[in-house]
Amino acid sequence: MLLNRLSLLFIAFFITLSLNAQQRKEIQIPDILGYKTLKCDFHIHTVFSDGLVWPTVRVQEAWLEGLDAIAITDHIEYHPHSSDITADHNRSYEIAEPAADRSGIILVRGAEITRSMPPGHLNVLFIKNANLLEREDVIDALKEARDQGAFIFWNHPGWKKQQPDSTLWWKEHTYLLKNNLLHGIEIYNSEEFYPEALTWANEKNLTILGNSDIHAPIQIKYDLNDTHRPITLVFAKEKNKSSLKEALFDRRTAVYVENTLYGKADFLEPLFFASIHINTSPVQLKNQGVASILITNTSDLDFELELVQPAVGFGCPETIFLEAHHSTLVELTGNSEEVGQMKTLKMYYSVKNLFTAPDENLIVTLDINNL
Amino acid sequence: MLLNRLSLLFIAFFITLSLNAQQRKEIQIPDILGYKTLKCDFHIHTVFSDGLVWPTVRVQEAWLEGLDAIAITDHIEYHPHSSDITADHNRSYEIAEPAADRSGIILVRGAEITRSMPPGHLNVLFIKNANLLEREDVIDALKEARDQGAFIFWNHPGWKKQQPDSTLWWKEHTYLLKNNLLHGIEIYNSEEFYPEALTWANEKNLTILGNSDIHAPIQIKYDLNDTHRPITLVFAKEKNKSSLKEALFDRRTAVYVENTLYGKADFLEPLFFASIHINTSPVQLKNQGVASILITNTSDLDFELELVQPAVGFGCPETIFLEAHHSTLVELTGNSEEVGQMKTLKMYYSVKNLFTAPDENLIVTLDINNL
Amino acid sequence: MLLNRLSLLFIAFFITLSLNAQQRKEIQIPDILGYKTLKCDFHIHTVFSDGLVWPTVRVQEAWLEGLDAIAITDHIEYHPHSSDITADHNRSYEIAEPAADRSGIILVRGAEITRSMPPGHLNVLFIKNANLLEREDVIDALKEARDQGAFIFWNHPGWKKQQPDSTLWWKEHTYLLKNNLLHGIEIYNSEEFYPEALTWANEKNLTILGNSDIHAPIQIKYDLNDTHRPITLVFAKEKNKSSLKEALFDRRTAVYVENTLYGKADFLEPLFFASIHINTSPVQLKNQGVASILITNTSDLDFELELVQPAVGFGCPETIFLEAHHSTLVELTGNSEEVGQMKTLKMYYSVKNLFTAPDENLIVTLDINNL
Amino acid sequence: MLLNRLSLLFIAFFITLSLNAQQRKEIQIPDILGYKTLKCDFHIHTVFSDGLVWPTVRVQEAWLEGLDAIAITDHIEYHPHSSDITADHNRSYEIAEPAADRSGIILVRGAEITRSMPPGHLNVLFIKNANLLEREDVIDALKEARDQGAFIFWNHPGWKKQQPDSTLWWKEHTYLLKNNLLHGIEIYNSEEFYPEALTWANEKNLTILGNSDIHAPIQIKYDLNDTHRPITLVFAKEKNKSSLKEALFDRRTAVYVENTLYGKADFLEPLFFASIHINTSPVQLKNQGVASILITNTSDLDFELELVQPAVGFGCPETIFLEAHHSTLVELTGNSEEVGQMKTLKMYYSVKNLFTAPDENLIVTLDINNL
Repeated sequence: MLLNRLSLLFIAFFITLSLNAQQRKEIQIPDILGYKTLKCDFHIHTVFSDGLVWPTVRVQEAWLEGLDAIAITDHIEYHPHSSDITADHNRSYEIAEPAADRSGIILVRGAEITRSMPPGHLNVLFIKNANLLEREDVIDALKEARDQGAFIFWNHPGWKKQQPDSTLWWKEHTYLLKNNLLHGIEIYNSEEFYPEALTWANEKNLTILGNSDIHAPIQIKYDLNDTHRPITLVFAKEKNKSSLKEALFDRRTAVYVENTLYGKADFLEPLFFASIHINTSPVQLKNQGVASILITNTSDLDFELELVQPAVGFGCPETIFLEAHHSTLVELTGNSEEVGQMKTLKMYYSVKNLFTAPDENLIVTLDINNL
Repeated sequence: MLLNRLSLLFIAFFITLSLNAQQRKEIQIPDILGYKTLKCDFHIHTVFSDGLVWPTVRVQEAWLEGLDAIAITDHIEYHPHSSDITADHNRSYEIAEPAADRSGIILVRGAEITRSMPPGHLNVLFIKNANLLEREDVIDALKEARDQGAFIFWNHPGWKKQQPDSTLWWKEHTYLLKNNLLHGIEIYNSEEFYPEALTWANEKNLTILGNSDIHAPIQIKYDLNDTHRPITLVFAKEKNKSSLKEALFDRRTAVYVENTLYGKADFLEPLFFASIHINTSPVQLKNQGVASILITNTSDLDFELELVQPAVGFGCPETIFLEAHHSTLVELTGNSEEVGQMKTLKMYYSVKNLFTAPDENLIVTLDINNL
Repeated sequence: MLLNRLSLLFIAFFITLSLNAQQRKEIQIPDILGYKTLKCDFHIHTVFSDGLVWPTVRVQEAWLEGLDAIAITDHIEYHPHSSDITADHNRSYEIAEPAADRSGIILVRGAEITRSMPPGHLNVLFIKNANLLEREDVIDALKEARDQGAFIFWNHPGWKKQQPDSTLWWKEHTYLLKNNLLHGIEIYNSEEFYPEALTWANEKNLTILGNSDIHAPIQIKYDLNDTHRPITLVFAKEKNKSSLKEALFDRRTAVYVENTLYGKADFLEPLFFASIHINTSPVQLKNQGVASILITNTSDLDFELELVQPAVGFGCPETIFLEAHHSTLVELTGNSEEVGQMKTLKMYYSVKNLFTAPDENLIVTLDINNL
Repeated sequence: MLLNRLSLLFIAFFITLSLNAQQRKEIQIPDILGYKTLKCDFHIHTVFSDGLVWPTVRVQEAWLEGLDAIAITDHIEYHPHSSDITADHNRSYEIAEPAADRSGIILVRGAEITRSMPPGHLNVLFIKNANLLEREDVIDALKEARDQGAFIFWNHPGWKKQQPDSTLWWKEHTYLLKNNLLHGIEIYNSEEFYPEALTWANEKNLTILGNSDIHAPIQIKYDLNDTHRPITLVFAKEKNKSSLKEALFDRRTAVYVENTLYGKADFLEPLFFASIHINTSPVQLKNQGVASILITNTSDLDFELELVQPAVGFGCPETIFLEAHHSTLVELTGNSEEVGQMKTLKMYYSVKNLFTAPDENLIVTLDINNL
């Protein structure tokens, strides 16, 4: 009775937590190829496993940071708070769902199947009932997830606690891959990059992911004004759960960490060109002459360009720094008679913060019309 | 001889001052009504009158801050550095011009005619020869400027040094106005706002301007990362000098100071609506129901909205804060049976940081489709 | 068995939450009068009542922000998470205690007795067993707390949900005061200031407090790099729990909110003078002469000074802004023959951001030696 | 006449440039060994050679940034603005001097003797008359400076324009050194570090300097809120010109660039220990036990420590990051029976951002009392 009477008084506390009261930062990374570029984090914990916040907080954090989709992936096999928190494996999703609906965050039902290596930890997304994943045999758990329609990925494959000396692909992972029990792999988790995982993803055709694996409140690790958590970019036909799922199975992802992108050139190249705008008026470069072009970068990424080979007929900068939301003047200097006749001035640059493989940068061609 | 030999050595110093080496911040205020929104400062000094920097610095500062056009307006009658600097009144423009051409800044030739009140100080823009403005009689000087095609405006009309007790419009200003010797007025100069000037501009059909009147290096007063100088927004057909001049004579301006805009509703209303994006999917608001709309502000301005009158049929927030480059969730709550039948939900807000007159805010109507 | 085997693997998660991995910001507010100035928050919630974070998070947040002491004060009568969390009223303290010990945070055992008005909500600090506070009659609960040695204060006395139209002192509070059941009062809670409470505290000799009443992760509301939560400054003989308790009962507190301090002149005046350093070399001010003094502010507070009355014999600035961690040049100008003979130049300033009562600022006298 | 009448009007412009109107940031680097740690820049240009600001601006910039002393060192042999500015070599000092006196900045009269390599460019400080340095033969110019009592140093010895392929010490420099015509050397200029110069300084007993060589307004290159220009730290008996000069001749300097210090261990070690405070209460570390120590860094420098060799009897972190104005918890873990008997726990760390030679870091010993 007391609680009922009091509950009206306390509603006010929740109003102060309302999403209305805060502003959502919009992440400026453009849509490409007719797809929406969804900003996602698919590895998140709450007090319902070993995390330190209530599930609704994960929705609010994601909304404030400008994410489009998250998965709460509490551990199936690890519940250190179990003496205080008694609830089944579906509970964190159920608590967070109304907040997600209200704020337009796509909330994916997920879980982390948490075993020793091999096969280590695996996240399962788009499941229907997490309680059915509590199985003695890890293969049984993964098959149950697959039968529920799950997208399955290997978490932090190079985690030192499980692979202290080297980052290995085990025969068990080959088994999972062959049996449709493995679709993706984290190449980045929290503050660790796993170059081997990026190589495997390229070789074995796995979806790449980069996630926060956050346990604490997100802003203790990532100050909203300075930085962002590791994000999986998903190129989806629409901003909804089914398009997101389709895109993940179709390997349309890139990984966004600090100021770096990892992914296939198929996605990174259009992302680069959709992020910058080259002043369109043609130049008139002649021998001994100078022409300036203005390049405006409308994205949140700073691009660091390095000349791959000397331009033919004219000089151009060895390096170009395209700061986020800024413009840069680039000067070309004619150094041959031929340049006066060239219709297009071509420059080849390596983008040092866009990676298509562990040691391979995206190469872009800048074409400037010359009258 | 010595200088000639040495000059090759010293070219390196100028390279470090090159505009290439720095990034231009892009000011995010949208184009409207088919016009380009040019960001301008028409009141600037250099060492050639009583300023403290070399003319080229003014171009570099403007470029870095994201301005499109500036006028260097050194005093005709005041040259405190004349024992060290001997040059005619055209010299500061001539020195700055090559830097402006190279970086794409529109540099307007100007000067400040500097007299006691009345008529006080007046800036003349788009002149051809500043030396001819050195005349005993201020009217002669202004007529010379007019004959050169100048756009003429009254500077800091409420400056305490010249109008200590009140801000008055003198009969001399009426004379100037009637004789085509006065076209605009500063409503904002440095850190001072002159509300009377805004009222006069509305009554007498004068172009409004807001300028820095900067003497020191600009970043000593305005930290590039935090704030910006007072800016005159000019709505011009093209980004070039003749369109700029046409727009000034045609009174297509607004004044942008800190987080505030001053101007006619004709310009401020489209600026507001071009700055925000309201989530387009229609809502389904019913009695006792709740509907959320997401408003994204893509401009550099924070908008502060205050409800003018209660909405009919539903509740909406008393205040809405639309932070720059952020999104805000706005919740509507049905409080009548009628709301279920309304095709459009209308809300009337006053925008507290957009002013059409000293005590008048822009009123905007937010229309939301309701299914 | 599975959990036991796995537990070694999971220890790594907690390492990432380790206090070692983060830096503690040191709040620069000086010690005074031989006391340590402890920075405290005595009103904090966790998931064990209606908060949204695990108790250890509260310790980590306090440590990072530079606090010295906190009290976790979960509601006795309100447990909205009770279907998921089953624990007694002592549990949040017990969970947080080891983290507090390890990091040197003084953790005060507390609780919030949560009733309708009168008497509203009251926090009890330094209790021994929170479970004994679950009593039908609020007076019984408070007596139990008092018998455990509690320091008791009235929370958010002007909270609109409980006092919608006015902020009243009820006869019930007089009863509490007379029966040693009320020792302090929040003059600031979350983002609300209660001027009446400051007046009552001055009249009735109550300890003043300012607390966060935080439910969400602290950094969602207070960005560590920009701002701080409301803080109760406690002037304690030592940095330990018993000195803290003694100081609270002895009313040695001030309240620190944004850039404002509230408190008695007995504490604010020494705080002001311990925060600034006036260049000690004496000036030689004569009639028509000018003397500069440099004032350095080593605290985190910006001080805003306003002249109370003209200085005798010389002129000094109407306002002085002493920015945190910056120095300011103040110019004095002799305007009488007498000034040459004055041994001390006296200036009287009101400190606009230091309040001794709702409408009363601290007045300080600046003395400058004159040769 | 006109100018006289007008001059009263214009005084107002200068008030807005007044040092009063701005706050001086205090650089937090402690005094050591009984010396004052003066923050200095001895290589600065104005419009009177090839710089871009008026001399008084250099004083204001220095004051705002927290410097104690500067030298304006306009080129003797290079005057690209000479068609507009006609003044002798002493003029920039004379113009800046009153502003320096008023604000307490020590202004050193200097000049840059500007020749091709060898000997390249040399700055002369504490001269009496710069005009006498205009000599055909560079040796004559330097002898004149020496006879005026100058402190002479070699500027940017590895400047690519003069030493494109390697950084060499020429026989001419040996001549200068032997003839008391060379006392110091820039190891850092603008954004270039010259490791060879640091080695030469150590070998040949030269004073090291790091200077800005600034031509543009300082804040175009160095944002006051984020960073600082290269600074020469001078350890002087008093804050005055003669102590400064004595300290330079006595080689009591270090160089402060971004987050790095270069200098002799004699100065860097006391600087490090004066910057940090180790929680003094002794620990009680035993085998298998854990002890925490709190290290507070009160300086503006972040210190990055790396363990040089394992501690005997206990474990300590491989790396410690001591953030500026923050505290860090360091955990020691007993791993031997002996540790219980040790009176002092010794740890040896290399400070990765303090350099005593190009490839040598300062090594510090942290001693903790153990009960």
